[in-house]
Amino acid sequence: MSKILVIHGPNLNLLGTREPDIYGKITIDTINTKLKELAKGNDVELEIFQSNYEGEIVEKIGKARNNIQVILINPAAYTHTSVAIRDAISAANVPTVEVHLSNIYAREEFRRTSLIAPVAAGQVSGFGLDSYLLGLEAAIRLIKNTKRQG
Amino acid sequence: MSKILVIHGPNLNLLGTREPDIYGKITIDTINTKLKELAKGNDVELEIFQSNYEGEIVEKIGKARNNIQVILINPAAYTHTSVAIRDAISAANVPTVEVHLSNIYAREEFRRTSLIAPVAAGQVSGFGLDSYLLGLEAAIRLIKNTKRQG
Amino acid sequence: MSKILVIHGPNLNLLGTREPDIYGKITIDTINTKLKELAKGNDVELEIFQSNYEGEIVEKIGKARNNIQVILINPAAYTHTSVAIRDAISAANVPTVEVHLSNIYAREEFRRTSLIAPVAAGQVSGFGLDSYLLGLEAAIRLIKNTKRQG
Amino acid sequence: MSKILVIHGPNLNLLGTREPDIYGKITIDTINTKLKELAKGNDVELEIFQSNYEGEIVEKIGKARNNIQVILINPAAYTHTSVAIRDAISAANVPTVEVHLSNIYAREEFRRTSLIAPVAAGQVSGFGLDSYLLGLEAAIRLIKNTKRQG
Amino acid sequence: MSKILVIHGPNLNLLGTREPDIYGKITIDTINTKLKELAKGNDVELEIFQSNYEGEIVEKIGKARNNIQVILINPAAYTHTSVAIRDAISAANVPTVEVHLSNIYAREEFRRTSLIAPVAAGQVSGFGLDSYLLGLEAAIRLIKNTKRQG
Amino acid sequence: MSKILVIHGPNLNLLGTREPDIYGKITIDTINTKLKELAKGNDVELEIFQSNYEGEIVEKIGKARNNIQVILINPAAYTHTSVAIRDAISAANVPTVEVHLSNIYAREEFRRTSLIAPVAAGQVSGFGLDSYLLGLEAAIRLIKNTKRQG
Amino acid sequence: MSKILVIHGPNLNLLGTREPDIYGKITIDTINTKLKELAKGNDVELEIFQSNYEGEIVEKIGKARNNIQVILINPAAYTHTSVAIRDAISAANVPTVEVHLSNIYAREEFRRTSLIAPVAAGQVSGFGLDSYLLGLEAAIRLIKNTKRQG
Amino acid sequence: MSKILVIHGPNLNLLGTREPDIYGKITIDTINTKLKELAKGNDVELEIFQSNYEGEIVEKIGKARNNIQVILINPAAYTHTSVAIRDAISAANVPTVEVHLSNIYAREEFRRTSLIAPVAAGQVSGFGLDSYLLGLEAAIRLIKNTKRQG
Amino acid sequence: MSKILVIHGPNLNLLGTREPDIYGKITIDTINTKLKELAKGNDVELEIFQSNYEGEIVEKIGKARNNIQVILINPAAYTHTSVAIRDAISAANVPTVEVHLSNIYAREEFRRTSLIAPVAAGQVSGFGLDSYLLGLEAAIRLIKNTKRQG
Amino acid sequence: MSKILVIHGPNLNLLGTREPDIYGKITIDTINTKLKELAKGNDVELEIFQSNYEGEIVEKIGKARNNIQVILINPAAYTHTSVAIRDAISAANVPTVEVHLSNIYAREEFRRTSLIAPVAAGQVSGFGLDSYLLGLEAAIRLIKNTKRQG
Amino acid sequence: MSKILVIHGPNLNLLGTREPDIYGKITIDTINTKLKELAKGNDVELEIFQSNYEGEIVEKIGKARNNIQVILINPAAYTHTSVAIRDAISAANVPTVEVHLSNIYAREEFRRTSLIAPVAAGQVSGFGLDSYLLGLEAAIRLIKNTKRQG
Amino acid sequence: MSKILVIHGPNLNLLGTREPDIYGKITIDTINTKLKELAKGNDVELEIFQSNYEGEIVEKIGKARNNIQVILINPAAYTHTSVAIRDAISAANVPTVEVHLSNIYAREEFRRTSLIAPVAAGQVSGFGLDSYLLGLEAAIRLIKNTKRQG
Repeated sequence: MSKILVIHGPNLNLLGTREPDIYGKITIDTINTKLKELAKGNDVELEIFQSNYEGEIVEKIGKARNNIQVILINPAAYTHTSVAIRDAISAANVPTVEVHLSNIYAREEFRRTSLIAPVAAGQVSGFGLDSYLLGLEAAIRLIKNTKRQG
Repeated sequence: MSKILVIHGPNLNLLGTREPDIYGKITIDTINTKLKELAKGNDVELEIFQSNYEGEIVEKIGKARNNIQVILINPAAYTHTSVAIRDAISAANVPTVEVHLSNIYAREEFRRTSLIAPVAAGQVSGFGLDSYLLGLEAAIRLIKNTKRQG
Repeated sequence: MSKILVIHGPNLNLLGTREPDIYGKITIDTINTKLKELAKGNDVELEIFQSNYEGEIVEKIGKARNNIQVILINPAAYTHTSVAIRDAISAANVPTVEVHLSNIYAREEFRRTSLIAPVAAGQVSGFGLDSYLLGLEAAIRLIKNTKRQG
Repeated sequence: MSKILVIHGPNLNLLGTREPDIYGKITIDTINTKLKELAKGNDVELEIFQSNYEGEIVEKIGKARNNIQVILINPAAYTHTSVAIRDAISAANVPTVEVHLSNIYAREEFRRTSLIAPVAAGQVSGFGLDSYLLGLEAAIRLIKNTKRQG
Repeated sequence: MSKILVIHGPNLNLLGTREPDIYGKITIDTINTKLKELAKGNDVELEIFQSNYEGEIVEKIGKARNNIQVILINPAAYTHTSVAIRDAISAANVPTVEVHLSNIYAREEFRRTSLIAPVAAGQVSGFGLDSYLLGLEAAIRLIKNTKRQG
Repeated sequence: MSKILVIHGPNLNLLGTREPDIYGKITIDTINTKLKELAKGNDVELEIFQSNYEGEIVEKIGKARNNIQVILINPAAYTHTSVAIRDAISAANVPTVEVHLSNIYAREEFRRTSLIAPVAAGQVSGFGLDSYLLGLEAAIRLIKNTKRQG
Repeated sequence: MSKILVIHGPNLNLLGTREPDIYGKITIDTINTKLKELAKGNDVELEIFQSNYEGEIVEKIGKARNNIQVILINPAAYTHTSVAIRDAISAANVPTVEVHLSNIYAREEFRRTSLIAPVAAGQVSGFGLDSYLLGLEAAIRLIKNTKRQG
Repeated sequence: MSKILVIHGPNLNLLGTREPDIYGKITIDTINTKLKELAKGNDVELEIFQSNYEGEIVEKIGKARNNIQVILINPAAYTHTSVAIRDAISAANVPTVEVHLSNIYAREEFRRTSLIAPVAAGQVSGFGLDSYLLGLEAAIRLIKNTKRQG
Repeated sequence: MSKILVIHGPNLNLLGTREPDIYGKITIDTINTKLKELAKGNDVELEIFQSNYEGEIVEKIGKARNNIQVILINPAAYTHTSVAIRDAISAANVPTVEVHLSNIYAREEFRRTSLIAPVAAGQVSGFGLDSYLLGLEAAIRLIKNTKRQG
Repeated sequence: MSKILVIHGPNLNLLGTREPDIYGKITIDTINTKLKELAKGNDVELEIFQSNYEGEIVEKIGKARNNIQVILINPAAYTHTSVAIRDAISAANVPTVEVHLSNIYAREEFRRTSLIAPVAAGQVSGFGLDSYLLGLEAAIRLIKNTKRQG
Repeated sequence: MSKILVIHGPNLNLLGTREPDIYGKITIDTINTKLKELAKGNDVELEIFQSNYEGEIVEKIGKARNNIQVILINPAAYTHTSVAIRDAISAANVPTVEVHLSNIYAREEFRRTSLIAPVAAGQVSGFGLDSYLLGLEAAIRLIKNTKRQG
Repeated sequence: MSKILVIHGPNLNLLGTREPDIYGKITIDTINTKLKELAKGNDVELEIFQSNYEGEIVEKIGKARNNIQVILINPAAYTHTSVAIRDAISAANVPTVEVHLSNIYAREEFRRTSLIAPVAAGQVSGFGLDSYLLGLEAAIRLIKNTKRQG
């Protein structure tokens, strides 16, 4: 059974209470519940992880190499500042889907650059909770495509 | 019945033959067939349109205001140069989903800036054909969310 | 009898419906009617033209050389991206008045640069419908000044 | 009776003698005479003021709040360097029309940025003496529009 | 009784020994003692916290929402690199006072940009130990103002 | 008895009426009254001065050398444009505290650079009236520290 | 028999009348006649095409794939703005020679960047009519070299 | 008898006391005395003027047109910020020699750009008092050269 | 006996498996073994440390002040983003040798800037495992030089 | 008989051995032989010169003024760094054709700027050996055009 | 027996007398003596060369191809300006070790960019004389590694 | 007897024939004659040197240390590109006067930056032949000042 690692970056534990005009009122628990439902329906296993520590995320990704088929990550603030997470993804050599709740290209200048995007397979952004669900679907399709070619 | 306008930007008529190492071997006809299947299964109607003319795309969007619920656009080269299409989307006041076959953030510097992104609802990029299918799903979800709130 | 060519750039056909908080509620028909009244009172003829195509605007200007005394243009989105229209104006060698409905210098960064301005005789911007009327007056004065010196 | 404050910025007292190939041979007195004629014909009163001092212009604008309906300003060199005049205009909360004799966008790089434009209602530039007359007309129309809405 | 959270960023535990020509010879203990005295005299409670971990600071701020009235933070090196702390402050929705021992604007280029400043209520910098004391006073005044308006 | 020179830069004479959403409703007279009270309680004398003229502020600072212990300045718009005031402060060799009513780092891009900051002892910004009071306290502490070391 | 597609970009239909101090007095017809003579002498066929529409040029190049050996293009104004034509050339996978009448590197800043150059085989610029003739010779040599290697 | 206008910019009245490590210990009076001696020996008359006001310097230059052969100016801080003084020099049409006590190219970044230099005949900088004396000699030679050619 | 602290930055625990075309196939254990051999032969003691946490590295360096003679650090991804580690090195006041496995100047743009280099004694980069060994030799020589001068 | 000076810049003596994937396998001797053949057939004389010294190239060009009708130069690395060669060409006042073996616009960023291009008559680049032959033809045509006009 | 070419760039002949606070008091002769000792102990031959001429260094490298195994170069000032030396190294196809006496990353902005680094195998900088010795060791190891793999 | 080294940079041997509208008609021989006259009258000896080779100028300066009191240099094109000459001047530790015939600040952008200026004592530019004579006078005064202080 395929396994997908879901990583929620810094401050996402506060979701629902944090700046609801930008991020909506959905909590991280709701997101996780919805993700699990979708995973179940597609026969994939999820490992879900949230951290505010750049280093902890780096370590998690570093361990993903062996038993994870795809990483689904919302790097949040680290999207724009973390070369370490970027390097971890390159090193892990696991296809990675980057998601964002908000449309980062319609916000402050510094949020429009993603250090993660160039090493990701693809991105989904701007659809709130649906960014995660579409991202998970993208992840599942990546697994299927790989299997089909394998 | 809801209607979604699908716009393929310049050079996409050549898909499948054009730089297959970047864009894959799928043709625009395959994409359209897959999109229609997905639309059918979700009870939405599609209007599909390809143009190499910036002006023609502007006009198409200008007319979308009355009978279109969501625009799904792959602006291709115009992503990076067309203020006119951006203004057309703002003027149309129709939620717009931006899709890209390739991961534009992993390519040449000038492809990393999207003039369209700041006026789009969200983006999906990097998943080849699946970018379109996920984008259409995003579009369908936007319609559902609107209805739910309406 | 002197003749002035009025060019409305992309998306201006949608005026009145498009982003009324920025562009007001006046339609392109109202603007044209007002321009014609003012022209009539000053014994000049108007040729009015709207296009969403950069190429069509280039061609229109290319043909202006023989029978047009002044061009009055609102290049809209092409203000910021079209070297072709700029070259067409240089080539036409017809004095050109650039107008904008909104104050482009109070908007997004990329709207503050006009590729047209350096080849225009002058600009009027920020006064809504009145930008056109003042621009037409400027055009009429340019004709008079030329005649006086001729 | 409405009152418009006309401000001529630094070096404009030398007009007619200064670089005639750029600014023409018209003197500040001719401009003022023409402005007064136009004002008279439209039943508005003018207060005309020239200063080479940034501080003096700031003070003049600061006092405009009570009895002035519109400011018509040619900030000349201060266009490009004075945050203080910009702040004064914002503080005065009086609609302001910015005019320039020459087409500032066709000159040296540093003249293409106006610190004043973002707080002005609109600009007229490039028409020599006519920039002032069109600017005054714009000012008069601003007053009329306000009355109509009032 | 109101409560203020004092956060000392990375390397501040070394204060007094670290580059005394820039940061002076005062230790973090002295600062904390002085802050507590001032707090006591104003009837506010302090919670004091030092961390070299960006993630730990993010978490601390994330928990501040419920029982903290103002945050007083010297983000030190993270001032210039942490979008995560910035986002945490925005999410916490607790007024924040930013302090710096040294005058960051008189140092290396990269120290002159603060990612924190745009989400802070205000800053105090350059006064050594007194930056903290003045910052605490600012925090106390913010609480008083809020109460007065409440 | 120590003497502190308080300088209010351009447009601050309009305080309370000018853009109250940014600067609040407090007038310059209220600020001066509060400053005098605080000064009195600390046995320092104040000399208070407002000018809209860069040159006049330069002159005032030039004369401060002999009888002034600290300068407290809100350079307002000149913060961002005046090398002359910066040079005057360097020349005066009198410790200078820079204050701002608003948080200049949360406003327009050009307001985020202070030419004054690199020659100031420190800054206080963003606390409205309290910026002045905290700045005066900082000034008083600078005097005390000097005495202690003297 | 080999076939070369000659593309004249926007405004080149006006050649000879347009800014003769920059572009000389030669018309597009003279250029075409000279090109045909040279082609005839080298046993290659020419297809000649002029358009002011970016989209039309994109389409022409899109169709070149099957029966064209080399493209000879003077992209004129689109040299500096068209990612779409660049993509069309990449997609067509036909060797392309870029020519310019004037020395674009001795003109305005924005004319010194060519979006086309990186996907062209080579460039000839600055020799007026001779740029075209040398470009055609280059094209013929590319065909010969290909044959020799084939 | 030829007349040279010597202008000392802002803060130069403080010379000798101001930052002696950069500007030396010579006072403005010593400079003026030395300049007068040199002028006398060369049969030219000097008019000497110091101001801290940009506007006052603009006015002085504006009046120079009729009776001044050369302007010798140390614009000090206004070197880097005053378009108004630059315009005044252009308007005056009097050859101008720019001098600086210190080597401005070996100081802070922002001091390395002179707005005045492009409209000056030439510059002398870095030689302290001797910059003025060499500048005056340059001015005298400009007068002689003009006469020789006249 | 002298002691050298060896710090391996983020992702270096994965060495040998991570992107072998860039970093080679050597593991961190091999590096450590070789370093220890070299240290032993030179009578210096090593303390070896790897962390993916910026904060943990900051803390380690902060404690180095008392018993460490030289730090040998491969900051990996934090080379380009960590002001905190830079500040820690400055604060520690222990000579630091920066090493990199790959030639960072031949890779992506953002990897060519090192925040650490300006506070390091020197750098060795591009020699794979040998970068560490040469770096350790450099460290040993720094100790010897210090002793010789002591 | 007309004479053309051919200058090969630095490292071109190594041609054929140097980076054959970029520059091909043709040697400088082959190029010179081919150039001489073409020259002979057109009745022009060639002077051929290679140097790795910027200064020697400057001197060669300086002597070209009297007996050389056109310079044909491949400035190689000095294209991007030599103001001295640019000045020599301006000073020589001899029409100059710039050639490059490779398409410099498709290589590293710093190779896309030519200091020579703005003072050259025109450029030919990207066609390998043919760049030289086309460049020589361009040179011959320049001579013919001059004669025709003379 | 392997041979290493040691190149000392411009001004290094003056070493020991030149700015001793930056470069130390060691002369080029001392460096050469130490290098020879180290070479002897490792059974490699050295060819040592100093030149102030960019062209001479280019020629030396051009001849290195046949009998040199590694180049050890301190390009000094040419580090930052010479594309010609960079191209010579690429053309020579001989592994190159770049050394610097001082830490170039801790000096003026323009010294932080090395045109040589991207074509070097690696760099050693900041250790004075030891930079050369460590660089030579790196060179020797490169030879050994090549032999081992050969 | 004091000795001054006069260095003429590249292309200055062509003076009088080269671009006379920028550099005038004076030859290098006239300049040298005039310089010698002035030197003789002031009891200083001149050594005059012209070179088109950066390396030769570097060597000349390198030897100046022992018997030269001041260097007078017109670095011409090398002003903008030579770090090597800059380093040579720093190393020589001989006061250096930089002169330019033309006003380099009124010419092309790239001529406005001098790499030499930051290490020169001062500059004289824009006065043609007189730049040299004033520069020599500056040099003589530097010698006198040094003697007076000695």
